[in-house]
Amino acid sequence: MSTFGVTLKKVVDDSYDIEIGFELEETLLRDLQNGLVGSVKKYAVVTDSIVKELYAEKICRMLQSAGYQAELFVFEQGEKSKTRKTKEMIEDAMLAHGFRRDCCIIAVGGGVVTDLAGFVAGTFGRGVPFINYATTLLAAADASVGGKTAVDTPLATNLIGLFNQPEKVYIDIAAWKTLPEIQISSGMAETIKHACMASGELFAYLEKHMQDLFSVQREVCEHIAEENCRIKYHVVEKDERESGLREILNLGHTVGRAVETVSDYRLHHGEAVAIGLVAQAKLSVRLGYMTGQEADRVVRLLQQAKLPVAIPAYIDREALVQKLYTDKKVRDGRLRFVVQKGIGGIVEFEDGVFATPVTEDVAREIILQL
Amino acid sequence: MSTFGVTLKKVVDDSYDIEIGFELEETLLRDLQNGLVGSVKKYAVVTDSIVKELYAEKICRMLQSAGYQAELFVFEQGEKSKTRKTKEMIEDAMLAHGFRRDCCIIAVGGGVVTDLAGFVAGTFGRGVPFINYATTLLAAADASVGGKTAVDTPLATNLIGLFNQPEKVYIDIAAWKTLPEIQISSGMAETIKHACMASGELFAYLEKHMQDLFSVQREVCEHIAEENCRIKYHVVEKDERESGLREILNLGHTVGRAVETVSDYRLHHGEAVAIGLVAQAKLSVRLGYMTGQEADRVVRLLQQAKLPVAIPAYIDREALVQKLYTDKKVRDGRLRFVVQKGIGGIVEFEDGVFATPVTEDVAREIILQL
Repeated sequence: MSTFGVTLKKVVDDSYDIEIGFELEETLLRDLQNGLVGSVKKYAVVTDSIVKELYAEKICRMLQSAGYQAELFVFEQGEKSKTRKTKEMIEDAMLAHGFRRDCCIIAVGGGVVTDLAGFVAGTFGRGVPFINYATTLLAAADASVGGKTAVDTPLATNLIGLFNQPEKVYIDIAAWKTLPEIQISSGMAETIKHACMASGELFAYLEKHMQDLFSVQREVCEHIAEENCRIKYHVVEKDERESGLREILNLGHTVGRAVETVSDYRLHHGEAVAIGLVAQAKLSVRLGYMTGQEADRVVRLLQQAKLPVAIPAYIDREALVQKLYTDKKVRDGRLRFVVQKGIGGIVEFEDGVFATPVTEDVAREIILQL
Repeated sequence: MSTFGVTLKKVVDDSYDIEIGFELEETLLRDLQNGLVGSVKKYAVVTDSIVKELYAEKICRMLQSAGYQAELFVFEQGEKSKTRKTKEMIEDAMLAHGFRRDCCIIAVGGGVVTDLAGFVAGTFGRGVPFINYATTLLAAADASVGGKTAVDTPLATNLIGLFNQPEKVYIDIAAWKTLPEIQISSGMAETIKHACMASGELFAYLEKHMQDLFSVQREVCEHIAEENCRIKYHVVEKDERESGLREILNLGHTVGRAVETVSDYRLHHGEAVAIGLVAQAKLSVRLGYMTGQEADRVVRLLQQAKLPVAIPAYIDREALVQKLYTDKKVRDGRLRFVVQKGIGGIVEFEDGVFATPVTEDVAREIILQL
């Protein structure tokens, strides 16, 4: 018997920039011409059926005019497309168009496009570079920082995927003008989550400027996009040293993801998160970490953002309770929740532990109140 | 417009040990009890329909007896199972059995099991640890070092996957006794490739000890397993500094993978690689990097290993030529080959470049000779 040691220690630099502004197509082109992804000449522009006509075709044509080889890969819009099947369809289409390892993927769209295209990029040819051109507030709030990519499966959301950092992210606020109101609301859910867990100031800013956001007032939108990046980055970066902190991004997502699945995606992700945020606020009040008044502020801000704050009548409450067990935070068969502390804070239960076990009975009681 | 910088620079240590020996089940158990994968209690033992009864069930029961939660996940043996569909089947079965992120995957089997289970581990819950318990010579030669995992698609082999390093690799030589002869031969193809490209000594050793290998003479097998690891590690490790060197592992694989696909997997991977090695040797002679006598030694050694050295009659030569274009080394639509230099060397075409463009006509001419 002999042992052979394989030493694989290296410094990995996944740093990247997030560009926040109005109409960034030309900035993207200039960056590519300046070598953002080296000498890559082939670009797969991945998008959904809505963003295709609004932005992706334009970007694809712009690349072609500049002498690059660019092809459009389109899937049906919506969370229901975030599946292994859609990933397979994009891969097969890319292979059929002659794409191999010497390409780059540009995701143009919202969170679903980012999640899916980032995952495709992570496994295509064992990894090709990718760029995020984010057209929604949700993508700005949630998908621009952290490198999480994933698809859903019948049994769980976001459980198949990988960590994959983009070469660069563009947050084009001009695109928000084309968003249906529900998409602004949906993005606000993650923004409100960020404010709830990390910034009383942002929370107060949102209470004051919600209308400016809905009318896509440029300065307000840029500020909100920046604050989202700043808060998420702070958490994600810290987590490299302080394991467990990243779990606080799950605030509101335990009930949120479960209700999203049980609704069979009739609820948008943001709507589901809004309901989850109310659930955790009620839990927090019960555990003594928030006042009733603070919980009411959370509920009111979600309502200002035109988000639901109660579980729709068509949802089977008991199915929802059982679905909680598919949550990624479950350990040894026990439910665990992240809990808000006042406005702008998170409870640290012990050193570096930000999720607490909650009995099924307590979880059921909270859900039956909603 | 504003730019937000995300700094993600870190030291990654993917180092691991390869244990080479006879009957290593107990060693595996001891390692787990000593914290090889921390406090993980749930193990998914992934295997194929052949290895299931020979080893995997035994390992699974051993883990259960030791107080771990262990489940067996079995797919139909053979390269044809190395698909996204099989990956999906394993994922769904794991989810249905309650596996989440707090688990570890143990691959028990040959190269197909390793490739597939390593890929599943890389994307399950965005990455869970995995262990390779390699039961074939091919896995020892090819899959133990390098961290490459992948599945095949209708349009290309090994193009969807990722780099994922195991926690530890066990090469159980006792298992080679249970291998059908074709499996020993198949593993020899990669071993002979390693000798061709990096070690005249190993090449001579194989010429002398081929019979001992087929009778699984322990010392000979251990030596061959070690040399395989040593050569592959040398290439893979160097490649972290010297990009392009890793391409030399593709020796014989340009034609090899194409003929494997065109045969619709009637040829084993090793058989296909053997044919590919003959093809590149003939190319090398033509380009003046090998003598005819050296090429004959390669052909004879492959024959000693009971491997084919000609393309089977049922293969459509022209389809094979076209299939070459799906090779990962293709750049800007041009075929590229790695070329052997004498016995135990590789041609470096320019500084750090180990693959050379070959016209379709030359490739066709070589193929028509086989």
